[in-house]
Amino acid sequence: MLRRRSRRATSNNRPIITLLSDFGLADSYVAAMKAVLIRECPEARLIDITHQVPRHDVLCGSITLERAVDGFPSGTVHLAVVDPGVGSDRRLLIARINQQLVVGPDNGLITWPWRMHGGGDALELTWRPKRTPSHTFHGRDIFAPVAGQLAAGTPIEELGRPIDDPVLLDIAPANEPTGRGRVIHLDHFGNATTNIPVEVLGPKPQATVHVNRRTIGKLKKTYWDVPPGKPLALIGSSGLLEIAVRDGSAKEDLKVRVGDEVELR
Amino acid sequence: MLRRRSRRATSNNRPIITLLSDFGLADSYVAAMKAVLIRECPEARLIDITHQVPRHDVLCGSITLERAVDGFPSGTVHLAVVDPGVGSDRRLLIARINQQLVVGPDNGLITWPWRMHGGGDALELTWRPKRTPSHTFHGRDIFAPVAGQLAAGTPIEELGRPIDDPVLLDIAPANEPTGRGRVIHLDHFGNATTNIPVEVLGPKPQATVHVNRRTIGKLKKTYWDVPPGKPLALIGSSGLLEIAVRDGSAKEDLKVRVGDEVELR
Amino acid sequence: MLRRRSRRATSNNRPIITLLSDFGLADSYVAAMKAVLIRECPEARLIDITHQVPRHDVLCGSITLERAVDGFPSGTVHLAVVDPGVGSDRRLLIARINQQLVVGPDNGLITWPWRMHGGGDALELTWRPKRTPSHTFHGRDIFAPVAGQLAAGTPIEELGRPIDDPVLLDIAPANEPTGRGRVIHLDHFGNATTNIPVEVLGPKPQATVHVNRRTIGKLKKTYWDVPPGKPLALIGSSGLLEIAVRDGSAKEDLKVRVGDEVELR
Repeated sequence: MLRRRSRRATSNNRPIITLLSDFGLADSYVAAMKAVLIRECPEARLIDITHQVPRHDVLCGSITLERAVDGFPSGTVHLAVVDPGVGSDRRLLIARINQQLVVGPDNGLITWPWRMHGGGDALELTWRPKRTPSHTFHGRDIFAPVAGQLAAGTPIEELGRPIDDPVLLDIAPANEPTGRGRVIHLDHFGNATTNIPVEVLGPKPQATVHVNRRTIGKLKKTYWDVPPGKPLALIGSSGLLEIAVRDGSAKEDLKVRVGDEVELR
Repeated sequence: MLRRRSRRATSNNRPIITLLSDFGLADSYVAAMKAVLIRECPEARLIDITHQVPRHDVLCGSITLERAVDGFPSGTVHLAVVDPGVGSDRRLLIARINQQLVVGPDNGLITWPWRMHGGGDALELTWRPKRTPSHTFHGRDIFAPVAGQLAAGTPIEELGRPIDDPVLLDIAPANEPTGRGRVIHLDHFGNATTNIPVEVLGPKPQATVHVNRRTIGKLKKTYWDVPPGKPLALIGSSGLLEIAVRDGSAKEDLKVRVGDEVELR
Repeated sequence: MLRRRSRRATSNNRPIITLLSDFGLADSYVAAMKAVLIRECPEARLIDITHQVPRHDVLCGSITLERAVDGFPSGTVHLAVVDPGVGSDRRLLIARINQQLVVGPDNGLITWPWRMHGGGDALELTWRPKRTPSHTFHGRDIFAPVAGQLAAGTPIEELGRPIDDPVLLDIAPANEPTGRGRVIHLDHFGNATTNIPVEVLGPKPQATVHVNRRTIGKLKKTYWDVPPGKPLALIGSSGLLEIAVRDGSAKEDLKVRVGDEVELR
């Protein structure tokens, strides 16, 4: 279990809270959550992951969240709110993955971190504010107070009760024997991330990569291994097979989409 | 009056400065203001509200600013710069609203916080930098130095002189007897905020909501009270009547616009 | 040389690290760099300049970076990553300009700060991480660790070796006798920044400004010196001649582009 941190954390060891949402940056919603986080944990360091997850796109949020869970240190609290079910009876969640904590709706948002880091602990969030929360903004009224309390050292057991069935999306890292996978994410540059980890490629370094029956070619090391404008497959910075176009965009130039089939032959 | 804070504020009680502007995020303008804020108040915590207010849209900035004034604690300083009049002889303003301070142009930007929090104190900002400020970027050259000084504890009386006629836009919360209001804001999700506070709805919980003579229906509690794609009226997280479309957009699907009439019958 | 800072920097004198990139805000790339910066320098204050530099647009990044180098205090470390050559054999750079440090690829990104602040010191970055870095994300794997170490007080000499030929783009501030320059940047508002410093204009305050053979007129002080919708030339907040349209956009209304000729006659 995470050891309880003192509120007297030194400036060199401040609790970290990250924020991820589909709220966009034009409104005051993100700042409203930050005001609550600071109130609950004045010494917290707040780091935005992104607030540009496409509206209600839980899968995209999950892939992006995994990158944060991978990069931040033990004890980090991730406030993750892509919440099409706000106001319904969907459960609320605290998950402990990779010695970090995720707070958000129980709708599959934790899937990719959970799958990539070998699962974790899940708790149904039972804490509720004294004042009746809004029906439309649990990010501010429930999730942020909880994330702030966790960062301030409150044990998760005081805020929820263990469950063994957190909602998980139907997506998982590809496993070795199949040689098949899917595109799971398109980034700002139009690079297409697949669910095929580098470990799966180990036995097949000479395999040829195909997307939607289009031949991309053998695995390359860097963009510079192909001429400008040409497609390539390489291991991206997340340790997953990526399809890219040098100085171009797999999304635009190859019309690759999330869900497209990827095959190694 | 706000008590003068010591410069030796502990890390648990750092002064908060928020930033709101129409500067966008592509240039270095926001960072230029932050460099000044840190210079004047090194211990300040800087929180962006938004920098995506549509260019020169003082009303939009005002609505968004109110959400910040509502959510942040006493003593917070808000640096708010939507300033089509920069370089003209428009006045500069410090306002004290809800035990917080707003620094920016005197062009109506404070209207919605002022109206929603029962007014406040207004001062014409008389402080000027020793070096002649630019004619195009008072955010950096005047407003940020002042916001930083206020966060560091300088009393407002040293920076301005009281006035009783701050510029206010022609917009106010709807009052009870009329049952009429207007759309005042469209958010990232296309939800339409009106100027009708929940208190006005108290006596009329059974009223039917109409927008532009279109019937939306009776007040609902959550998005989940209607089927996907259907419009609804509910109390938003700001305590104002909102028009929304479940899993859709009032802006896109209903073509609701700022200024549209809303009626309760 | 910059004096070595203690790790026990007080909260009033925290090291500043700025971030500039073309990574956009939709992915976790920026947060991944911040996780590394905090690991290397826990007390650092992180300030985003922008992450919306157009993809691979080194010139645009350079102009924006200069504004940061101009505004931040001595000792600031700027992590600047617009890096079309990632994975190639392009060099990596630490530059000392205006008593600040810039870390990034050696591809001309430092050009405008270098030119505007009279040059500086350049070092080829020789530090490499123990674990093999990715081939696609040196921002996270090399530049951020180095920026963090520099902010924490590591002398630059421990991380690189002096070079005298940093890559510089073919762009420089206009000099006095010619009266000719170019548009070097278009900002969020569509204002066009030129490479003509105010000092060059000193002897020619009565000159008429022309862009693409279109007459803009004599130099004005503020937007308010012309009617709404009319073009004007003025000294922008960066001390450079700017072409603008009052309440409009030089980019949209005048079709001004980066590279366009500007002449004073």
